[in-house]
Amino acid sequence: MRIQYDDMLNEFKRILIKKGFSEQDAYLSSKLFTENSLNGVYTHGVNRFPRVIKYIDKGYIKVDKKAEKVDGFGSFERWDGNLGMGNINAKISMDRAIELAREFGIGIVALRNTNHWMRGGTYGWQAADAGCIGICWTNTLPNMPAWGAKDSKVGNNPFIMSVPRSNGQHVVVDMAMSQFSYGKIEEYRLNGKTLPVPGGYDSEGNLSTNPEAIEETGRVLPVGFWKGSSLSIVLDLIAAVLSGGRTTYDIGKETEDEYGISQVFIAIDQSKFNLPELTDEIINNTVNDIKESTPKNADTNILYPGERVIATRKENLEKGIPVEESIWNRIIKF
Amino acid sequence: MRIQYDDMLNEFKRILIKKGFSEQDAYLSSKLFTENSLNGVYTHGVNRFPRVIKYIDKGYIKVDKKAEKVDGFGSFERWDGNLGMGNINAKISMDRAIELAREFGIGIVALRNTNHWMRGGTYGWQAADAGCIGICWTNTLPNMPAWGAKDSKVGNNPFIMSVPRSNGQHVVVDMAMSQFSYGKIEEYRLNGKTLPVPGGYDSEGNLSTNPEAIEETGRVLPVGFWKGSSLSIVLDLIAAVLSGGRTTYDIGKETEDEYGISQVFIAIDQSKFNLPELTDEIINNTVNDIKESTPKNADTNILYPGERVIATRKENLEKGIPVEESIWNRIIKF
Repeated sequence: MRIQYDDMLNEFKRILIKKGFSEQDAYLSSKLFTENSLNGVYTHGVNRFPRVIKYIDKGYIKVDKKAEKVDGFGSFERWDGNLGMGNINAKISMDRAIELAREFGIGIVALRNTNHWMRGGTYGWQAADAGCIGICWTNTLPNMPAWGAKDSKVGNNPFIMSVPRSNGQHVVVDMAMSQFSYGKIEEYRLNGKTLPVPGGYDSEGNLSTNPEAIEETGRVLPVGFWKGSSLSIVLDLIAAVLSGGRTTYDIGKETEDEYGISQVFIAIDQSKFNLPELTDEIINNTVNDIKESTPKNADTNILYPGERVIATRKENLEKGIPVEESIWNRIIKF
Repeated sequence: MRIQYDDMLNEFKRILIKKGFSEQDAYLSSKLFTENSLNGVYTHGVNRFPRVIKYIDKGYIKVDKKAEKVDGFGSFERWDGNLGMGNINAKISMDRAIELAREFGIGIVALRNTNHWMRGGTYGWQAADAGCIGICWTNTLPNMPAWGAKDSKVGNNPFIMSVPRSNGQHVVVDMAMSQFSYGKIEEYRLNGKTLPVPGGYDSEGNLSTNPEAIEETGRVLPVGFWKGSSLSIVLDLIAAVLSGGRTTYDIGKETEDEYGISQVFIAIDQSKFNLPELTDEIINNTVNDIKESTPKNADTNILYPGERVIATRKENLEKGIPVEESIWNRIIKF
């Protein structure tokens, strides 16, 4: 089934108000959830909403709290999320990083005690919509073995980078440090399919494309093997050191749920030195060149990072946002 | 054979002075080359030196030029490398980013018209030695196919992140966006070995660990398949947009040699808000936890990013730096 954008937003808003959010915060958070589904990231839009409600009910997400500045030095500020709603806190933090970039050229907000920001790409698009380059990342609970290990001690710590184009078709990469999320591996299993590339290890210690075998060991593959494992560790440490917040290790110590995490938001106001035409020309030349690559198969469409979002968004605005009926039926009963 | 640190440095310095560098610049550049080999990154130390001399002789590297500031706004500056020696330009740029971080909390220098910086990790360690978090990257000539493509249109664009510890044992990740460099693949072939994990595609379009088969197609694998391809594109675009310099596309248009590239240097002065003891504690807790993972094999030593460098450096300081005799004999004849 498909749900229209406004209907989905209003339904989320109704529920968040019922849970205790102010009208304004409920609208903002609902808009962010709805946009994620609109842009095709269903896992962190409608599909994730029920778990967020559960986290509100458990008291992990505080409906009456929001991020606030605790310390600042020039273009570097430290904020405390006060365990408020993750997507609102992240939006506030990137807004502030953009303000700092307007004043200083580059701005950074390190945010502690926050919650899952849902789709990280949101905040990269946000920076790019403001004409800025955006760089941001989050840590997570332990959900991936370090390279050479069997038990999960590092996070998949999504990392986002964005570059603005004046037509709004920004170039955005939004990547977790695991090759596939657990949700994606489950999706392949439920559909009876194998992964398109190796996504983890089987019980013999061999690389595998079999979702069930990987789920059994829990040994999901970091991107680039040892490289993604290393990058994940350093992203986690930087987020915790800059924010004075919790590391993946700290997050995993207490419960199996994920809350009180650490994030970093950097904005760079590239318009300080560039006319929009110049930035567009630099990006367009590269994007066009890459799309003119010799494809591996005749029918392979080579995409630039962020291209799929534009197409999905257009389709979902026209036809409505695809949702799984069982999930939607659960939501409307909240 | 092994060469002592001072002997290697003096030999490089002799040659660079002969090529026209000032005494001071020759010393600085030679020190950076020697340190790379000392730290175990032989590919970008002694082994790369002959190619750098060739680039000086071809006029790509200007012995009498250095990076200078062309524009600045607050904590964001744009510098022009004037095609000077890449490692000197990069050192100057990270030094300036650190100065900006001292003043503003975070500082960024975008550098255009520079040359290969050799080992990118150098500048991450540099930032960490100053107590800062370092983030830097470079673009390169086209040397990797974009995801879904057969011809090389994107760079392997090394990306570096570092976090300081007060004992100097910093945590540093230094990763190119290709799973293996061409040099590494060649090394496996010459040693008659297969790659430890898939590193590219064979002529049938299958993932392969056979170095010869990958060299035949030139289809090296990006880290994390589509993910490393996307990250590579965005790193390239940001470097060119911020510096006003050349993209990988621009670099590849003219020649098959690599010069006139674009780089980004970010430093964040984390000491603004942290006592050294706190930063150390955050890092040590995580590093210790990861090293206590259950290893995949009983004899697997799980390393944190940067750990190997410390051990190699110690060994090479004691015993001398290992060099291939044929390369060293070529160098001493320059």
